[in-house]
Amino acid sequence: MSKEDIEQLDELLASKNISTGSTGFTNAALKGMPRMFNNDGSLNIQRKFGAFYRVYDLYHSLIIMSWSKFVGLIFIYYFLTNCFFAGLYLWIGVENFDGAITQRNFSDFWYLFFFSAQTLTTVGYGHIHPVSFSVNILSAIEAMIGLLGFAFATSLLYARFARPKNGLIYSEKALLSPYKDITGFIFRVVNGKPSNLIEVKASVIVGINNNDTGNRDFFELKLERDRINFLTLNWNIVHPIDETSPIKNLTIADLKSRSAEFYVLLRGFDDTYSEIVYSRRSYTSEEMLEHYKFQPMPTIVNENGKIEFDVTNINEIIKV
Amino acid sequence: MSKEDIEQLDELLASKNISTGSTGFTNAALKGMPRMFNNDGSLNIQRKFGAFYRVYDLYHSLIIMSWSKFVGLIFIYYFLTNCFFAGLYLWIGVENFDGAITQRNFSDFWYLFFFSAQTLTTVGYGHIHPVSFSVNILSAIEAMIGLLGFAFATSLLYARFARPKNGLIYSEKALLSPYKDITGFIFRVVNGKPSNLIEVKASVIVGINNNDTGNRDFFELKLERDRINFLTLNWNIVHPIDETSPIKNLTIADLKSRSAEFYVLLRGFDDTYSEIVYSRRSYTSEEMLEHYKFQPMPTIVNENGKIEFDVTNINEIIKV
Amino acid sequence: MSKEDIEQLDELLASKNISTGSTGFTNAALKGMPRMFNNDGSLNIQRKFGAFYRVYDLYHSLIIMSWSKFVGLIFIYYFLTNCFFAGLYLWIGVENFDGAITQRNFSDFWYLFFFSAQTLTTVGYGHIHPVSFSVNILSAIEAMIGLLGFAFATSLLYARFARPKNGLIYSEKALLSPYKDITGFIFRVVNGKPSNLIEVKASVIVGINNNDTGNRDFFELKLERDRINFLTLNWNIVHPIDETSPIKNLTIADLKSRSAEFYVLLRGFDDTYSEIVYSRRSYTSEEMLEHYKFQPMPTIVNENGKIEFDVTNINEIIKV
Amino acid sequence: MSKEDIEQLDELLASKNISTGSTGFTNAALKGMPRMFNNDGSLNIQRKFGAFYRVYDLYHSLIIMSWSKFVGLIFIYYFLTNCFFAGLYLWIGVENFDGAITQRNFSDFWYLFFFSAQTLTTVGYGHIHPVSFSVNILSAIEAMIGLLGFAFATSLLYARFARPKNGLIYSEKALLSPYKDITGFIFRVVNGKPSNLIEVKASVIVGINNNDTGNRDFFELKLERDRINFLTLNWNIVHPIDETSPIKNLTIADLKSRSAEFYVLLRGFDDTYSEIVYSRRSYTSEEMLEHYKFQPMPTIVNENGKIEFDVTNINEIIKV
Repeated sequence: MSKEDIEQLDELLASKNISTGSTGFTNAALKGMPRMFNNDGSLNIQRKFGAFYRVYDLYHSLIIMSWSKFVGLIFIYYFLTNCFFAGLYLWIGVENFDGAITQRNFSDFWYLFFFSAQTLTTVGYGHIHPVSFSVNILSAIEAMIGLLGFAFATSLLYARFARPKNGLIYSEKALLSPYKDITGFIFRVVNGKPSNLIEVKASVIVGINNNDTGNRDFFELKLERDRINFLTLNWNIVHPIDETSPIKNLTIADLKSRSAEFYVLLRGFDDTYSEIVYSRRSYTSEEMLEHYKFQPMPTIVNENGKIEFDVTNINEIIKV
Repeated sequence: MSKEDIEQLDELLASKNISTGSTGFTNAALKGMPRMFNNDGSLNIQRKFGAFYRVYDLYHSLIIMSWSKFVGLIFIYYFLTNCFFAGLYLWIGVENFDGAITQRNFSDFWYLFFFSAQTLTTVGYGHIHPVSFSVNILSAIEAMIGLLGFAFATSLLYARFARPKNGLIYSEKALLSPYKDITGFIFRVVNGKPSNLIEVKASVIVGINNNDTGNRDFFELKLERDRINFLTLNWNIVHPIDETSPIKNLTIADLKSRSAEFYVLLRGFDDTYSEIVYSRRSYTSEEMLEHYKFQPMPTIVNENGKIEFDVTNINEIIKV
Repeated sequence: MSKEDIEQLDELLASKNISTGSTGFTNAALKGMPRMFNNDGSLNIQRKFGAFYRVYDLYHSLIIMSWSKFVGLIFIYYFLTNCFFAGLYLWIGVENFDGAITQRNFSDFWYLFFFSAQTLTTVGYGHIHPVSFSVNILSAIEAMIGLLGFAFATSLLYARFARPKNGLIYSEKALLSPYKDITGFIFRVVNGKPSNLIEVKASVIVGINNNDTGNRDFFELKLERDRINFLTLNWNIVHPIDETSPIKNLTIADLKSRSAEFYVLLRGFDDTYSEIVYSRRSYTSEEMLEHYKFQPMPTIVNENGKIEFDVTNINEIIKV
Repeated sequence: MSKEDIEQLDELLASKNISTGSTGFTNAALKGMPRMFNNDGSLNIQRKFGAFYRVYDLYHSLIIMSWSKFVGLIFIYYFLTNCFFAGLYLWIGVENFDGAITQRNFSDFWYLFFFSAQTLTTVGYGHIHPVSFSVNILSAIEAMIGLLGFAFATSLLYARFARPKNGLIYSEKALLSPYKDITGFIFRVVNGKPSNLIEVKASVIVGINNNDTGNRDFFELKLERDRINFLTLNWNIVHPIDETSPIKNLTIADLKSRSAEFYVLLRGFDDTYSEIVYSRRSYTSEEMLEHYKFQPMPTIVNENGKIEFDVTNINEIIKV
């Protein structure tokens, strides 16, 4: 197998990356195509399900909602459950309860509401306590529901808290820079979190309108290096724009006129969470520059003998 | 290595997919072969274990059972445990307890049942409380068991709740459609859940009776694309029926007469659950059509600048 | 690339599997070599660590120990913690407590032991309660420790319970059977658990004494099929003993004289636990037969239209 | 494809490992380059984030901090929360509470502090109890917060405990030893923990200053074997220093003068934790020896028929 053969094979493998079929993206070149990924990696897509198609997923909602909503929901749940049981107790009759509070400055409902809260949380001071059979049974059930409910809320709270958060910082711009003898599509990432990312893998897909066919084509870009073992400092992710590249000979103006969007997916193992984490990002032509290159991110040896690395340099570029 | 060589290699790799041996499926061509996967991905298989072979797995049962059964089980467990301890307390003697309830309208058993419930849930109002050594010891043990038991039940409850559910929606029919110059076996999927699926991988195996040998053969179908990075919209999964395909030249009637079943397995990473999820489905000849093709699923840009995508179009097909 | 070339490449790949170096196993051919894996997949190995090398792992111990030991440990912990706090309270003075129990039939120590238990479990009936500053502080600390301790014990209890258990059933014997035109090393597995195993991967390594060098050699065996998508019925795992096989031309007597052991590793995704599970097993020459082959495991269509599969047939073999 | 072709392909694949671009490491050859990984696998790197870049991750901090700090934090949180609520209750007025403690030897603040602790932990003895509306409401809220908080703290405590710890023991030195006809870069590892490591994968990268370019180059070293199925005994990890090796013809003195550092990454599946675990380590020239080789680690069959293996021999070397 000669060197030429191997180059031919390389070329073939490169061209194989070209998606001729479905990619999970839309294949139509929309008029005024908006970006499909937002800047923060969320999707700029709204799915309509009609009456029958959506698969409801309560867990998803409870995990995704904001902290303020989540905490609010717990308070509301706690309040309403207590109201419900207080109402039941009141309906059965306040005379079924006995307790140390004789001269109280509030109504029967609140008296029973407090009893309910003391039962639901299993505090059970006991200065109010059930006397008759019916309210004894009911409070036994309430205590059980309370225990399950609180522990459940805590599980959710913890699951939200312990969910790996995306901590990758991307350069604001992707560049068309000189790379070896040719040009490269280059952006860079650093880890903004204190945890370590191990075995990080990158893939970049470009979506681009085809002026001839009216379709939107998607190509997976061949990267100079698509995997690193440790993301300790910065990683410059480079697509060399060689003869096999789907964006060869295109300027940023060309990319803009074709509504090009570069979809980035990074995957790594976060050793604090012991979990695989993903990070999404996209670059549109608005976020690209040509005739610039990235400044190397300087590392120095500081007085403690540590390698010091300044993350804030991630966006440093110079004219070429 | 010439282009012909590479094509030859491709062909060889394709034919290598043909399973000549065991596949975890049955190799006998059963009379009136029923489908092996149900529509929802569950298996249409009943395993008989005899006396010694089954490996019992209580966790599996508790995770798989319906919510109504699970909640019922917790209530029954709570009731029976309280009955058990109330019985023990009664056997030791109700005179070992003291409490504020003097004129009660129920029996000693229920009196002690309520004490037990207050102990098991750790509410512990205290208006009933143990006096003698024996019941003090026993209630100390009950409180411990109660705490462990409730937290355990909650863990299970949460595990059930946080288990990723299959949210993929498949097209009702798989088609034999024109694909490039040839024909393709095509079906499509969309994500019915709000969470994102990342790095989705598909594989399709066909099981087909061999009229010559009386065996059932299994072939892994070569897909046009077996992996996508993001399942944002729809994914058309295509097996091109070329010269190397095990179903080349077969009509749906042929497939029916040979009890063909197409076993689909999809795997992806769900970024809400931070877990790998699988989805199973099978298509029989009853669920296939020829001379039809899928309508593209339209995406529009709505007034909010979002890409809008109507999931309900998944089954739209047209005659060709 | 001609067919011969490809065959040559195949051969080369096969011979590459031969481990010429370290394998994580011992390379010395021990006299009276015992099996390295026990029948159930546990290791027949005892590691000596000296004073400095062992890395203690309390979690491992608590997860691995038997249920009876684990539950016993919780009870002992509960008892001792209560003794400890009761001792402290007694040392401070029983007169710091007040309570409804006036005529008690047990000592001060037990009186305070029960108070401690009611505090640790957070039952807190309140008929015994702390009065002075010192015991109030101490009981506040105890309640906190109790809450953390119980929840911690429950987490462990759940982790033990929810740990995937190995449910694969292996055929008792591995056979040297006719396979196509040659002979194969064959054994089979079924899933003994109700959960589904997906994307199951097998690998088999043979360890065998080399009479020439006095070393123990390890070879990874090329399998006819090392991966199946679904383990729904049985899977016959076959190593074809062709020209490249390290055990070609060896009888079971030969294997015995060389203390051969076949190390099996299976990996799959268990869809109840949503986790990858592993299963280990080894076959020694004692567990092998030649001149036999496995009976196909029959599947029938039962009256419910389900495919019925009798697991108990796994060991059915016939003379050839 | 002739043998020569295959060798050529091998060579090509080897040279492909050479990172010509970014590797997540620094590419500048620092003066007095310190090691980048510490001996224990932690990173000797300090990242500066400026005002806007750091992504805060509270979970990481709580999981990584020492046990003494963590437990201290829980106590402080408990103390401060009780102070906060006690202060609120005091502000509302101690006359809103009633209780059995009449002649107490401490101030109102501590009286309410104890009530708060009894509420937060849900002990709720009840000998102190809220009377008026305002403190009833407040204590209902406190009980809820207490329950959530304690369960949350326990979740964290468990997460810390159940996090897989790195139990691999590396040989103190890496050797340049005779290997077959050439030299190899060799170190070895054993598992210091009782759990089993399955499917262990190794990769080694060398970072080395290039005296010509002033850059620091990184090369992934080709290993004799980069994957083993079971790490039961020891594993000698070998990089054969052949013609394609980036460290060919270099002595340890050469490596020292070029600040070479060998970055080791091991990944395996820990079957106690059912999780993938990673281990990092680096070797600098200070931790390397030439003209030595490792003694085989002896295994014997002990009186129980077990294979006995003495971990303490890991560092045994002899002159060659």
